[in-house]
Amino acid sequence: MTANVLFAAGAGQWAIYEAPLRRALDRAGVTARLATDLPPEEVDYIVYAPGSAVQDFTPFRRARAVLSLWAGVERIVGNQTLCIPLARMVDDGLTQGMVEWVSGHVLRHHLGMDAHILHQDGVWRPEAPPLARDRRVSVLGLGALGAACARMLATLGFAVTGWSRGAKEIAGLRCLSGDEGLRQALAQADILVLLLPLTPRTENLLDATRLALMPHGAVIVNPGRGALIDDAALLDALDRGQIGHATLDVFRTEPLPPEHPFWAHPRVTVTPHIASETRPETAAEVIAENIRRGEAGEPLLHLVDRSAGY
Amino acid sequence: MTANVLFAAGAGQWAIYEAPLRRALDRAGVTARLATDLPPEEVDYIVYAPGSAVQDFTPFRRARAVLSLWAGVERIVGNQTLCIPLARMVDDGLTQGMVEWVSGHVLRHHLGMDAHILHQDGVWRPEAPPLARDRRVSVLGLGALGAACARMLATLGFAVTGWSRGAKEIAGLRCLSGDEGLRQALAQADILVLLLPLTPRTENLLDATRLALMPHGAVIVNPGRGALIDDAALLDALDRGQIGHATLDVFRTEPLPPEHPFWAHPRVTVTPHIASETRPETAAEVIAENIRRGEAGEPLLHLVDRSAGY
Repeated sequence: MTANVLFAAGAGQWAIYEAPLRRALDRAGVTARLATDLPPEEVDYIVYAPGSAVQDFTPFRRARAVLSLWAGVERIVGNQTLCIPLARMVDDGLTQGMVEWVSGHVLRHHLGMDAHILHQDGVWRPEAPPLARDRRVSVLGLGALGAACARMLATLGFAVTGWSRGAKEIAGLRCLSGDEGLRQALAQADILVLLLPLTPRTENLLDATRLALMPHGAVIVNPGRGALIDDAALLDALDRGQIGHATLDVFRTEPLPPEHPFWAHPRVTVTPHIASETRPETAAEVIAENIRRGEAGEPLLHLVDRSAGY
Repeated sequence: MTANVLFAAGAGQWAIYEAPLRRALDRAGVTARLATDLPPEEVDYIVYAPGSAVQDFTPFRRARAVLSLWAGVERIVGNQTLCIPLARMVDDGLTQGMVEWVSGHVLRHHLGMDAHILHQDGVWRPEAPPLARDRRVSVLGLGALGAACARMLATLGFAVTGWSRGAKEIAGLRCLSGDEGLRQALAQADILVLLLPLTPRTENLLDATRLALMPHGAVIVNPGRGALIDDAALLDALDRGQIGHATLDVFRTEPLPPEHPFWAHPRVTVTPHIASETRPETAAEVIAENIRRGEAGEPLLHLVDRSAGY
């Protein structure tokens, strides 16, 4: 039997994904008709990324699942026309890239690298940083990405606290949950890493009140989602030195407009949503495996809980 | 029995080490007379760091060992008046700090962080780096520091090659040795980490010939010893772009003089010998344990092979 697979993503994505998807479907033993234009009523699976022209899922009457190319699904999960299962991307390459970016930027702030990168002024200032075991790092969000980053930071020696809304246990990590746990995780964060999904409950999670709970001069590293932070409250906290630095990879509007105050703020490092990206080869394997499962009547992987929003 | 322990280090060290040493000797159950001025003929052990006024060991007729506070012993190992065992510092805190510094700077270069730290120009350039598994890192020197750094870099996902003069095996690492192994390790190093001891055989190891073996644009990270590198050859390779960047923590003369061209070179980051330092608390425990062993007639730890020079 042939599965009809519609590729629905922004311009330019087809050129990147077509070959890896065909190879992965072959390897998974799936016979598929893969295209960017199929009659909606014939489509079995929709491979999806925001930027696609598809916004109304009603015409896809027999479609069995939407398979997101993105880990973050906040731009599709609330779509009222979507009544079939939605699977997130959980990609080894994405996770590994995120672990590298988070480890690198946490070490950068821990070691005080910027002072050396920015000020090669000929003055010898031999002040060594403390050991990582004396640096408290809190990771908010313990999904695939957050848990992997928290584990690596602990391996590097940091005193890591993980937080998630619901209680979780991860071997070797101190895990907190709930509102009181969040207050503790913030109060003890010399460096804070944000890897929460964006949902109505996490939007503006880091507002003025919660920023004020953090130790004076704490560092924020956000490779999660821009809207987790109240931008105005962050800028105010940076101006006052309450927050010592923010390294931000994600923003409410991307690309971040050139006139946005984050670009010029001396305590902000903007990186252009590069903390991690879905890698076509590994992502295609995740998509193909889910189509194989769908065709074999097996449960799909990485299904989104629509009520939780992720 | 009371052990007479002479503390012989540079100015200011006694204030740092006295209390940790007394605590560590107590904990080790050693009864010791610890001081900076003891009659030479009564001294049993010499706790030593370069900068000490002690240069002639002849008067210490009954001394049983010199216990170095430093991991690098090149400034004492060739001392012709030293005829008793010499032990190096192998300190968990020193190793851990080195692992953090090396991991941080390798990730910094891998992720291309400097572009973001130095150029917040409002231009969105979303180019993500490759994954660490596609970045080749060679670590020269597989002693306590080099092996620990190589293992952590492998844990972070890098394609790590270790090199030592004599053959070594480290689980999970590709280990090369000898002259041909060195050529391979250099030819395959996108990033090169130097953690060799300084000996007559390693001085200027990285000369013009060996720099030319490295891939064009390779990065050098040197937290080992300054004299491992031929400075003039490195500057020439940097000028030509053969070496893309050098992050240097150690120098032939320290502090590095303000007029040294390394400070102003756009492809060099100078850090002021902070990659790692001996931590008084943990180092004192290593010293106390060796004195305990000496008093108990047990073999000392971390003895230097005088013929090898480390």
